[in-house]
Amino acid sequence: LADGNTELLRQALTELHPAEVADLLEGMPPEERSATWALVADDIRGEVLTHVHDEARATLIDEMDHAELVSAAEQMDVEDLAEVLGELPDDLTESILSALDRDHRRRIEAVLSYPEESAGRLMSTDVISVRRDVTLAVVLRWLRRHHELPPHTDALMVLTNDGRYLGRLDMADLVINEPELLVAEVMKTEAETVRATANEREVAALFDRRDLISVAVLDQDDRLLGRITVDDVLDVIREEADRRMLQSAGLEEEEDLFAPVIPSARRRGVWLGINLLTVLLAAWVIGNFEEALSKIVALAVLMPVVASMGGIAGSQTLTLTIRGLALDQIASSNIRWLAAKEILVGILNGLIWAAVVAVIAYLWFQSSGIAAVIAAAMVINLLAAGATGVAIPLVLNRLGIDPALSGAVILTTVTDVVGFLSFLGLASVFLL
Amino acid sequence: LADGNTELLRQALTELHPAEVADLLEGMPPEERSATWALVADDIRGEVLTHVHDEARATLIDEMDHAELVSAAEQMDVEDLAEVLGELPDDLTESILSALDRDHRRRIEAVLSYPEESAGRLMSTDVISVRRDVTLAVVLRWLRRHHELPPHTDALMVLTNDGRYLGRLDMADLVINEPELLVAEVMKTEAETVRATANEREVAALFDRRDLISVAVLDQDDRLLGRITVDDVLDVIREEADRRMLQSAGLEEEEDLFAPVIPSARRRGVWLGINLLTVLLAAWVIGNFEEALSKIVALAVLMPVVASMGGIAGSQTLTLTIRGLALDQIASSNIRWLAAKEILVGILNGLIWAAVVAVIAYLWFQSSGIAAVIAAAMVINLLAAGATGVAIPLVLNRLGIDPALSGAVILTTVTDVVGFLSFLGLASVFLL
Repeated sequence: LADGNTELLRQALTELHPAEVADLLEGMPPEERSATWALVADDIRGEVLTHVHDEARATLIDEMDHAELVSAAEQMDVEDLAEVLGELPDDLTESILSALDRDHRRRIEAVLSYPEESAGRLMSTDVISVRRDVTLAVVLRWLRRHHELPPHTDALMVLTNDGRYLGRLDMADLVINEPELLVAEVMKTEAETVRATANEREVAALFDRRDLISVAVLDQDDRLLGRITVDDVLDVIREEADRRMLQSAGLEEEEDLFAPVIPSARRRGVWLGINLLTVLLAAWVIGNFEEALSKIVALAVLMPVVASMGGIAGSQTLTLTIRGLALDQIASSNIRWLAAKEILVGILNGLIWAAVVAVIAYLWFQSSGIAAVIAAAMVINLLAAGATGVAIPLVLNRLGIDPALSGAVILTTVTDVVGFLSFLGLASVFLL
Repeated sequence: LADGNTELLRQALTELHPAEVADLLEGMPPEERSATWALVADDIRGEVLTHVHDEARATLIDEMDHAELVSAAEQMDVEDLAEVLGELPDDLTESILSALDRDHRRRIEAVLSYPEESAGRLMSTDVISVRRDVTLAVVLRWLRRHHELPPHTDALMVLTNDGRYLGRLDMADLVINEPELLVAEVMKTEAETVRATANEREVAALFDRRDLISVAVLDQDDRLLGRITVDDVLDVIREEADRRMLQSAGLEEEEDLFAPVIPSARRRGVWLGINLLTVLLAAWVIGNFEEALSKIVALAVLMPVVASMGGIAGSQTLTLTIRGLALDQIASSNIRWLAAKEILVGILNGLIWAAVVAVIAYLWFQSSGIAAVIAAAMVINLLAAGATGVAIPLVLNRLGIDPALSGAVILTTVTDVVGFLSFLGLASVFLL
């Protein structure tokens, strides 16, 4: 590209799978990305867009005019297009929808009518359904009139005449059974189904637990609305892991590594501001011990040790507790056991590392008073770290706040404050 | 259970899916878990074990005698059993293998011969293969003689007479095409395949990119060894996300939330020890400025602000860079652009928050000197944070070390040292 060899690049792009083009575009700085996007063939742009993360996708959509957007929209699956449209401004969504043909538009509007992150948003409406009172031979004959089946069709859905779900006819059962059997004799009525209003994370957990390929999506009256396939669930799981990782550093989900400087700085600045408030609280605690600090300078040298060890121990407990909540392992019946265990782990590690730190402090400053005070402060802070590491996620969870985002900030504030307070406080009482 | 109502619990357990029993057991403290495990019916124990995380699984296996282990092993899929056996002591593995029937044992030994985390370990050897020179009608007739197909059979594999892979016959193509067509006319020869030696993460990325349900696993000579299905890939993706989350807090993968106190404390103590070394380095830096600290106590109060803001800004850059590496978005062509961007973001946020902190410091301590020094130190530290946040993962990656584990510790050490050094150093030069 740098050599201006655009024709060669255009050629190379046609040989890649749309998902690979998406990866390539995501790994490019803004100008290069925009120049390369202009070379991507119109007929794969829709599929490329479905494979790009949200924020990077926005930069690509910005480059497209209305006609290009409509043509890309026409290539997309209903559920993918619904996801893309959900992030565009309303007037743009409207104008793209109105340019699509009536049937396509109606199906997308149906998907968009469900809340974000619900099963309804994830489902494809492209489903093959059969009646229960026909033979497998009839089904096979009817399928042969199709030129292709919807992707990932591992089962046909069995419906009543008015569209109510009765069960599923697995493709495997269709081919291994005698053709003269009736659908009703072969179909599985016990198979899992989900409601369109179910949360996508529950759906993902169901796929994971039951090793599913597809699941029928029903409305409140058991009418079939569509089906969710495992490839969409894979995306949900990947995005969820991605979100957790980015959130732990206070970053927005789907942050674009190659976003320009100013928006990047602005987005990250928010988190820095929140952190400044918490560290100023810690500084205020330290400020209350000016007398001790001015008389014993060793306190200033050693105080980060107490705060930092508490922070590390607490974040271990916090991470395990957040994970336990995510895996539904924590219930009222075991919270007490868990809290007791984490506090004991904190005390045990507190005692061990307090002894090590006390020896180091004694050798460094030749003061048994300082050694004793830092040892006591370490035990107190690691105990507090264990207790708050369990308590914070549980409290945030009950308040309906995701502990993955704010848990670490709150925890560090607690371990900083307790660390400085116990160390400088004990020193003021016993060493001044 | 607490009420001694074991018969009721045993009854309830029989009504749960093995995956749900696994979840239930994982959410239990040791004694309760062991008592409940004793009530789980023998005929589902194998499947329950496949659904439990590694560390919790070890606690369950400890409770089983040899006969129970063999009976559980007999119920497991080849790839699941290989995973479980891979974690048992060699002599126990041997004695379980020797108790299995010859065919089962031979297949497991084949899977175990591949390195851990390879495609060979993930694959199932339960594959249906067909020849290319028969008609679809013959295939259908032959399938009807089976009572069931292996789970997740979305395609049959087309092989030469000596077992070389030619292509796949999708179940959809089998049912939509006319029965008199030959397999050779309908099969897909361009479908993705993987080598048995491929890393499981590459396999997962392939499934994710191409929306696959199953893929054929081949040896070096294109002989079919087995197939990998999407449910096993889902496990790989989930475990990988889990591992990253735990590693970021210095925890071992698959850590059991309900492990007893002493092993928990010992495992986590290692990470605390590493952290102690790094924070002692920071303390040593502070110790070099005892004179400044004893004369200007405000320095001790404000120094955590500089270090902490650098740590937060750096961890944002670090997280994005680690993610970019994991998604293969970073290449030699864009490293320079990325580093320049992150340094600029660091400078920009450094300037903004330096101004805010300078005002606060001035109002608090009424000293324009302190305000100027902390502002300068903030800019220096956020610049260093941006640069090292990009550099650390790239260097660790080149050294073959996973940056997700040690990146954060190294980064915090850098931002602590640079923060204390720049703030206390500038103060010593300009304010003493």
